[in-house]
Amino acid sequence: MKLYYSTTSPFVRKVMMVAEELGLLEQIEKEPVQAHPVSRSQAVLVSNPLGQVPTLLTDDGQAIYDSRVICEYLNEKAGGSLFGNQDSRWGILSELTALDGALAALVNARYEISVRPVELQWLAWVDALLDKSRTTLEYFESRVQELDERTDIVPFGLVCLLGYLDFRFAHFDWRKSYPGLDAWNNRFSQRPSVQHSIPA
Amino acid sequence: MKLYYSTTSPFVRKVMMVAEELGLLEQIEKEPVQAHPVSRSQAVLVSNPLGQVPTLLTDDGQAIYDSRVICEYLNEKAGGSLFGNQDSRWGILSELTALDGALAALVNARYEISVRPVELQWLAWVDALLDKSRTTLEYFESRVQELDERTDIVPFGLVCLLGYLDFRFAHFDWRKSYPGLDAWNNRFSQRPSVQHSIPA
Repeated sequence: MKLYYSTTSPFVRKVMMVAEELGLLEQIEKEPVQAHPVSRSQAVLVSNPLGQVPTLLTDDGQAIYDSRVICEYLNEKAGGSLFGNQDSRWGILSELTALDGALAALVNARYEISVRPVELQWLAWVDALLDKSRTTLEYFESRVQELDERTDIVPFGLVCLLGYLDFRFAHFDWRKSYPGLDAWNNRFSQRPSVQHSIPA
Repeated sequence: MKLYYSTTSPFVRKVMMVAEELGLLEQIEKEPVQAHPVSRSQAVLVSNPLGQVPTLLTDDGQAIYDSRVICEYLNEKAGGSLFGNQDSRWGILSELTALDGALAALVNARYEISVRPVELQWLAWVDALLDKSRTTLEYFESRVQELDERTDIVPFGLVCLLGYLDFRFAHFDWRKSYPGLDAWNNRFSQRPSVQHSIPA
């Protein structure tokens, strides 16, 4: 399989962690892409009309995207249980959606700050985008005692969100507001798949 | 079931069409929400930390979101075949992602034009967001001869994208650039579920 890839995308990071957890890492050839929201990758556009990473090409050439679909495909390929069972599946997919939505808002906030000309930036909008992380982290802080027991994909999505906040929004200081998540993150981040995929 | 709902959201529209196609419309109680990107709905936030519509509450109180997850849940509940089979599933989910991604970019373009103060608007950014619709419609224009045969969810996602362009971006004039999609859309829009959900 070939994965259109960037080292800084939190969505790519989730795919890489899941691939490592499922023992599929060696089957994935990484194809680096300079992801840019305005001038998109022509190489990726051939397979995915959004031109976004991550995009996976299977060995028979089928394009699979976005990260949520890729993770579910890898899970099925490996016979994993990251998406739960018939009953737990909908809660898992919904929580993963919350984490992906908070991350997408952060990526948009990052574009606002780093791509848009400074005289056109709107700080109230950046704050509204960051607020999706606040409400999502509040949700998980109130359920933090369940996290250690979970064996599905949601903790990996959560560690991507926290890691992206550290990487791009250090001033957000989530550790102070969400001490339960801080302690959980310290434990969960011992996993090799989390260590191997820290953005840099 | 209860659906947090707005008449203008293209993502809600997809859920409503799918519910009607699956014969589930009468089981869904619609709860109107004033969706706003900056001051989000407190009612929805209780169930979904993103505070977005559509959010579905099942009869036993479970929250399911976003539109993709809701549609798949409804499909499974009704024993439908909108998400294909084991093999076709990944292509369907990926194409649905392209349509959702193009729609999300349009919704962001709409925020840029209608929510952001006019002196902070950046037209190059609006154009980059609209470009996701262009590449996505090119993709489907080149496959338009397959669309009439398809019985999965993708044509419903496509009609949502085209309908939202008509509703909010009439100047985009997709009919001129994509004549195959224009003809297909005229045929597909005869379906009651499409007629019943036209945004207004």
